[in-house]
Amino acid sequence: MKREDYRQHISAQFNDELDEVRSHFLAMGGLVEKQVTDAITALLDADSALAASVQDNDRRINQMESGIDEEIVRILARRQPAASDLRMIIAIGKSITDLERMGDEAAKIARAAQSLCEEGESPRGYLECRHISNQVRVMIHEMLDAFAHFDADQAFKVMKADAEIDLEYRTATRALVTYMMEDPRSISRVLSVMGVLRSLERVGDHARNIAEQLIFLVKGADVRHATFDQVAKKLES
Amino acid sequence: MKREDYRQHISAQFNDELDEVRSHFLAMGGLVEKQVTDAITALLDADSALAASVQDNDRRINQMESGIDEEIVRILARRQPAASDLRMIIAIGKSITDLERMGDEAAKIARAAQSLCEEGESPRGYLECRHISNQVRVMIHEMLDAFAHFDADQAFKVMKADAEIDLEYRTATRALVTYMMEDPRSISRVLSVMGVLRSLERVGDHARNIAEQLIFLVKGADVRHATFDQVAKKLES
Repeated sequence: MKREDYRQHISAQFNDELDEVRSHFLAMGGLVEKQVTDAITALLDADSALAASVQDNDRRINQMESGIDEEIVRILARRQPAASDLRMIIAIGKSITDLERMGDEAAKIARAAQSLCEEGESPRGYLECRHISNQVRVMIHEMLDAFAHFDADQAFKVMKADAEIDLEYRTATRALVTYMMEDPRSISRVLSVMGVLRSLERVGDHARNIAEQLIFLVKGADVRHATFDQVAKKLES
Repeated sequence: MKREDYRQHISAQFNDELDEVRSHFLAMGGLVEKQVTDAITALLDADSALAASVQDNDRRINQMESGIDEEIVRILARRQPAASDLRMIIAIGKSITDLERMGDEAAKIARAAQSLCEEGESPRGYLECRHISNQVRVMIHEMLDAFAHFDADQAFKVMKADAEIDLEYRTATRALVTYMMEDPRSISRVLSVMGVLRSLERVGDHARNIAEQLIFLVKGADVRHATFDQVAKKLES
């Protein structure tokens, strides 16, 4: 499906409304991407001012979600969209919930960053945070890119990236449990770092959910509980 | 808003479709409630057969979600619902995502139960699990009841119950950190129990999200990021 498919409406205003809701969605995605990046930078650089600003900005994400939801209700009520327009509205309606929760996780990371900053000393597990956060950021970027270009194949790539992140997350968590056993005084600090890793892993899950919605949009197929083989077949057809 | 409001349609078939999607939603909620109850019973009674069956049943919840989603797309495409019908469709569309994730958390609890069963010995933190799970179960029950009767005041009660659960969760977590420090050999087992508590806390968050959707349905107000005072005002008006 190409962008032009959305340009066949008799009403130019309806076209504008659809374009607008999609561009608001992408703008919200861009802000969420920035929030995740800033939150992890705040942690790794022990930058507590940046951590505070991430927490402040979360409100803007919530407002964007509410705004897009209102646009969606308006379009559904007035325009009675059908076929691919309807799928786009539904996919965006579900995806903004995931974006908003990704924003919540960024705020959580920022809170952990702030309390870890105050304790000084850089604790164990930061290497893992850096590594997994790099993967998660690439994943968010590719997911938004896939959405901007209605690219179902790239969305499938995002789904597979999530599976890798889950694996890395489990490995990192096991390593941190070992650290805790070796040095019980570090338990509470290491738990904070584990919380950051969990937030990153969950950001990946939400990005995957959005990728699945994009496949629904482009292919009309529900791949939420499908295996990778099943998804590959849906994409071929 | 009373149930009868949904009975004013010229098309009897449209009425039936709306009734059906709502009753499917409530049935899905009933299964999720049972899954959470069974998962926690499996943990507390060290019943690994029950834990296995909870994990199996998760598939049914996923299927119910997909089925309801299809009904919603069909209604939006064919019936062009407006006003309170449209809000009901939107509220249910968002709420089934939360129900499905509550189901995921129940399956996670069941997995933890299974591995904790195998280790024998009842670990610390079970008292807290029992206590918080009782609150969470009451909360799910009241949330579904509120949905069945379009009761916005009861939905508000559910929102407040979530705040209490969050508080209890934080207290329980702090106690478990102390246990771990006292007995580092228990770390990995106590972490499993902390995971169960986190799942319960998250089930509460999802139930709250659904309660917020119900207030949107009944009052047309978006209370997702509102304070309790703001919600109370919306409910008076």
